[in-house]
Amino acid sequence: MYRSHTCGELTKNHINNTVTLAGWVHKSRDKGFMIWIDLRDRYGITQLIFDEERTSSELMEQAKNLGREFVVQITGTVIERASKNPNIPTGDIEILVSELKVLNASLTPPFTIEDTTDGGEDLRMKYRYLDIRRNPVRENLVFRHKVAMAVRNYLSERDFVEVETPYLIKSTPEGARDFVVPSRMNEGQFYALPQSPQTFKQLLMVGGMDKYFQIVKCFRDEDLRADRQPEFTQIDCEMAFVEQEDILNTFEGLTRHLIKEIKGVDVGEFPRMTYDEAMKRYGNDKPDIRFGMEFGELNDVAQHKEFTIFNAAELVVGIAVPGGNSYSRKDIDKLIDWIRRPQVGALGMVYVRCNDDGTYKSSVDKFYDQEDLANWAKATGAKKGDLICVLSGDTHKVRTQLSALRMELAERLGLRKSDEFAPLWVVDFPLLEWDEETKRYHAMHHPFTSPKPEQIELLKTNPGDVKANAYDIVLNGNEIGGGSIRIHDKETQAMMFDYLGFTPEEAKAQFGFLMDAFEYGAPPHGGIAFGLDRLVAILGGQETIRDFIAFPKNNSGRDVMIDAPAAIDTTQLQELSLKLDIKA
Amino acid sequence: MYRSHTCGELTKNHINNTVTLAGWVHKSRDKGFMIWIDLRDRYGITQLIFDEERTSSELMEQAKNLGREFVVQITGTVIERASKNPNIPTGDIEILVSELKVLNASLTPPFTIEDTTDGGEDLRMKYRYLDIRRNPVRENLVFRHKVAMAVRNYLSERDFVEVETPYLIKSTPEGARDFVVPSRMNEGQFYALPQSPQTFKQLLMVGGMDKYFQIVKCFRDEDLRADRQPEFTQIDCEMAFVEQEDILNTFEGLTRHLIKEIKGVDVGEFPRMTYDEAMKRYGNDKPDIRFGMEFGELNDVAQHKEFTIFNAAELVVGIAVPGGNSYSRKDIDKLIDWIRRPQVGALGMVYVRCNDDGTYKSSVDKFYDQEDLANWAKATGAKKGDLICVLSGDTHKVRTQLSALRMELAERLGLRKSDEFAPLWVVDFPLLEWDEETKRYHAMHHPFTSPKPEQIELLKTNPGDVKANAYDIVLNGNEIGGGSIRIHDKETQAMMFDYLGFTPEEAKAQFGFLMDAFEYGAPPHGGIAFGLDRLVAILGGQETIRDFIAFPKNNSGRDVMIDAPAAIDTTQLQELSLKLDIKA
Repeated sequence: MYRSHTCGELTKNHINNTVTLAGWVHKSRDKGFMIWIDLRDRYGITQLIFDEERTSSELMEQAKNLGREFVVQITGTVIERASKNPNIPTGDIEILVSELKVLNASLTPPFTIEDTTDGGEDLRMKYRYLDIRRNPVRENLVFRHKVAMAVRNYLSERDFVEVETPYLIKSTPEGARDFVVPSRMNEGQFYALPQSPQTFKQLLMVGGMDKYFQIVKCFRDEDLRADRQPEFTQIDCEMAFVEQEDILNTFEGLTRHLIKEIKGVDVGEFPRMTYDEAMKRYGNDKPDIRFGMEFGELNDVAQHKEFTIFNAAELVVGIAVPGGNSYSRKDIDKLIDWIRRPQVGALGMVYVRCNDDGTYKSSVDKFYDQEDLANWAKATGAKKGDLICVLSGDTHKVRTQLSALRMELAERLGLRKSDEFAPLWVVDFPLLEWDEETKRYHAMHHPFTSPKPEQIELLKTNPGDVKANAYDIVLNGNEIGGGSIRIHDKETQAMMFDYLGFTPEEAKAQFGFLMDAFEYGAPPHGGIAFGLDRLVAILGGQETIRDFIAFPKNNSGRDVMIDAPAAIDTTQLQELSLKLDIKA
Repeated sequence: MYRSHTCGELTKNHINNTVTLAGWVHKSRDKGFMIWIDLRDRYGITQLIFDEERTSSELMEQAKNLGREFVVQITGTVIERASKNPNIPTGDIEILVSELKVLNASLTPPFTIEDTTDGGEDLRMKYRYLDIRRNPVRENLVFRHKVAMAVRNYLSERDFVEVETPYLIKSTPEGARDFVVPSRMNEGQFYALPQSPQTFKQLLMVGGMDKYFQIVKCFRDEDLRADRQPEFTQIDCEMAFVEQEDILNTFEGLTRHLIKEIKGVDVGEFPRMTYDEAMKRYGNDKPDIRFGMEFGELNDVAQHKEFTIFNAAELVVGIAVPGGNSYSRKDIDKLIDWIRRPQVGALGMVYVRCNDDGTYKSSVDKFYDQEDLANWAKATGAKKGDLICVLSGDTHKVRTQLSALRMELAERLGLRKSDEFAPLWVVDFPLLEWDEETKRYHAMHHPFTSPKPEQIELLKTNPGDVKANAYDIVLNGNEIGGGSIRIHDKETQAMMFDYLGFTPEEAKAQFGFLMDAFEYGAPPHGGIAFGLDRLVAILGGQETIRDFIAFPKNNSGRDVMIDAPAAIDTTQLQELSLKLDIKA
C-alpha cells in the first residue's frame, strides 16, 4: 500500500502521528524558506509543509522542483496548523514532511484541475482523464453510482431479479436506426445492438420471471441532437400479472425512494394527468409543474371581435407571466424575437400588460376592450403586475410554441429550482400518431403497447383517437421514464403489426419469436424504462447528461479522447466479407 | 393486481382465507368427479381442487378444458389437504376454486416444464422462454443476480465506484478479434465493441478515481470453443496507489465473502503458488487443489536404465491414482486410448500397479526392478492399492497431457466435489510467451502488464524468463479471475510495445491516448477481472456457463430463438457506405 491514510481524513486527532500519503500536487506556495503543498487525492486535500528549520536542504530542493499534478508519496508527522482552514475537513492540520518520493512526473496539464476550470468543452473531452480529477466531475460519477446502487437495492428487496439480456441481437427496421455488427462466422449477416431489451424482457415474462429489471446500455444510431448520446443507459423493468395501476404504484415507490434517499426530499404522492390534460394545461406531455403559468384557452373570449388572426386560429391560448408587466417594450420585443426563432417558430405574439391599477394595456387594444382583457386575465390566472402572452394557430403547433415560451420564461424567472422536485405521471397516451411524411400511423410508444381494451373497436374507425395503456413519469419537465401495458396475445399483436404497415411476412421475420412465444401461455404484463443518464442529471440538479457520463461522445458520435470511430484494417473487412462503398 | 398471493406462500395459516392466484397450469389430474390442478408461478406450486359436490358443473367443465401451460387466474378458499405433500411449502393446503378465468391459452409446449425435461439442448434454446419456466434454469438466473448484488454491495461498501465505460470504442488488432460497428456518421470508420474496459479503467486511475469496478459485458469475435460465448460478463476492477499484495488481499476478501455469503462455506486464507510451481506440481496454471494426485517428477529415478523412451524425454512424470490398482487390464487400456485421443495427444503411458503386499507390477518390468518402482511410488506419493500413471516427453506438452489425465481421473473418482471450494492464487506469471507461428513474443496477460521491476534488465537477454506482476485467482480448477500491476510510465510502456512488435507509429495510433495520459501524472495502479459467467457457474456447483446465461448463443454465435444474426436491408448497408463482398 502506498499510503497509510487518504488525503481527506486526517484531523486534530491524528496530531503527532507519522503518516504516509500519496496523491497529486494540487498547488504549491514557495516562500523560499517555507514551502506549502496541497496534496490531493479522491478523498480530499491535505497540506504539506517544508521549512528551512525543520526540513533538510535536500528535501527542500526536492519540494521546490515539484510541478502541478506530479504524483508523490510522502511520509511525515501530522502537526497542528498555524492558520487553520475551516473550509476543508483536514483544515486543522498539516504534514511536516520527512520523506518525499516522486511516483510520476507530469507535464503541465492543458487546463486547471479546479472546480471551475479554464478548460473548454473540447479540451476537457480530449483529456477527460484529467477532467475526471476535478471535483464536480468525479462527484457526478460517484453520485451516479449511488443512484444506481439505490435502484438495485430497492428493486432487489422487492423480488425483482436483474437479468442480463444479450447485446448482439437482431436488427428491426421499426423505430430508430440500429447500430449493426457484421458477423464473421455467419457470412453476410449482421447482429444489431439493442435499442432496448424490449422483446427480451417480454420473453422473460413469458418465461415466468415475473419481476425483472436491468441497468443496461442501449444504442441508437440517430443524428445526434444536443445532449443525446449514441449509447445510453436504461433502468429497464417489467412485471407480469399486473395492471397499469400496479406498475404506477411500484415505480412511483422507487422514484419517491430515490428522491428521499438521495436528496432527502419527501415528494409525497405523485399527481396524475392524462396526456390530453397535460397538452391542454401545459402544451407539453412532460410538463414542469414546479411552477404555475398554466395555459388559459381564450377561444371563447377572443374570437368574437374583428381580429382576424385570432378568428382564423384553431386555438388561441395564453399564459400569465408573474411580474411581467415590469418588462420594457424592448424586453417584450426581444421575447417576440425569441419565439420567432426557427427553433420555436411562432409568427408573432399578442401581449397584455396587467397594470397595478387594475387596467389592461394590450398590443391589440384596437380590437379588444377592458372587459375582454379582464376575461383573458381570468382565463390565464393573470394578476396585477403580470404580463399575458397570447399565441394562436394550429392547436398542436401553438401549444408547443407556448410551452417553449413558458419554459424559457420560467428559467429566466428562476422558477425552475434545481433543489425542488415535482414528479408526476402522464397517462392515457394516444396509441398511434400520424406521420405526415409516410402518410401512415406509427406506434407512439412502440408496437407492443396495448390499446385500452374498451377502445379496440375504435381502431377501425378512428385510429388516431385510440388511447393506450401507456404512461410517462415526468420530473421537473423531463420525461425520466415511460412504459406501457403490453399486448400479450397473438391476435392483437398481429392486428397491431397490420395497422403499423407490416405485412404478415415482415412481422413473422422480425418478431416471429415473440408471436410464437405468445402461443405458449403469455401472462398479462407491462413495464417501464427509465433513462438513467437523465434521471441522475436531474437528481443532481442539472440538465446536461454529458456531465454524468464518464466518457461521453460528442455530437458527431465521436470519442475525441481515444479518437473513435476509426478506419480498420482491410483484413478485418475481408474477414467480415465487406467492402467499403464510399460515395465520391 | 391479478393475484392476492403467489403460488409459493400459502400454508395452514391461511386456511379459510379467500385468495386469488394467477399462474400456469403445471399438471392436472382428472378423476371425473374430482379434478386437481397444480398451479405454478415463479414462487412455487399450489394445488387447486374442483369436485362435483362443491364445484358448479360449469366450473368443472371449464377446469376439464384447461391444457398444460394455460395461464389462469383463480379465486377460491384455502382448505386443508386430505393427503399432504411434505415436499413443498404449500403441501398442507389446497384451494377450493370458486372462480376461474383463462388469461391466455397455450399450445402444448415442445418439451415438459419439469426439473428434468425431455427437451434437448437445441429445442430448449429455440424455446428458451419456456426453458426459463423450469426451476433449475430460473434458479440459476436468480442465483446469478444474487452473486452480482453481493459483489456490488461488497465493493461499494469498500469505496469502490461502479463507473460505466463506453461500448462503442476503437478497434485494436492486438489480442483477440474485435467485433466492429460501422459508423454511419463517420463514413468508412468503425467502432469496436470492447474485449474489456482495460484502457478505460486505467484512464480512470489516471483520473484519480482510485477504486473502480464494473459488472460489464465484453465481446470477442473468436471461433467459439465449447462453452465460450461471443459476449460475456466481467467483474472488472482497478485500484490506484496499490501494490500486488493489496490487490490480492482485497479480492481474496471479495471471493471469500462470496463463498461464505452465497454458499455458507468458510474457505479461510487462500494458498499462493507461483506459476512455475503450479506447472511443476499440477501441470496446469489453474490447478484443482480439492484433491491431491500431485505430479512426481521421475527423471532422477527413471532415466538410468535401458528404457530409451524415458531416457530421450525432457521430462518423465507420474501421478498416483488412489485405488487404481483395482483397474482391470481393459480399464487401463481404455485409459491409454483416452490419453491418445487427439484432444490430449499423448503417445502412450507407462503404469505401475502398487499391490497390497507392497510389491509392484509395471508395464516396464523389463527395464525397472522393484527398487526403481518403489522410488517412483515415493516420488508420486503412491500407496498400496494405487496405480501410478507415467508420461514422458517435452516438458510443457507432457505436463499438459498428465494434467488432463489427472482431471479426468479425479472426475471419475468423484474427487471434484461441487460443494467443496478450493481457491488459490497463482502468481508470478511469465511476462511474455513465445508464439511459434509468428515467431515472436506475445504478452501473456496483455501489453499493459508490468514486468517485475527487478527483472526489467533481463528483458534484453532472456525475455522468456522475465516474470510479471500478474496473478490469477483459481477456484476448483478454473481460472475465475486474473489481473496484474500495470505499467504506469510512458517509457516502460513504449518499451513493451516495442518488444511486442508495435512500431512507434502503430503504438501511437492505437494507444496514443494512454501514452499521453501517462505523461500527466499517472499513479501506480493495478487490477483484476473476474469472469462472472464462470464464477457463478462454479459457485452454483456446475461448470457449464450457458446454464447461467438467460439467452446464450450457440457454438456458431447464433441466437437460435430470435434467429440472429440475420441479413439486413440494402438501404441499411448503403447508409453505412458498405457493400457485401461474399466469396463465391
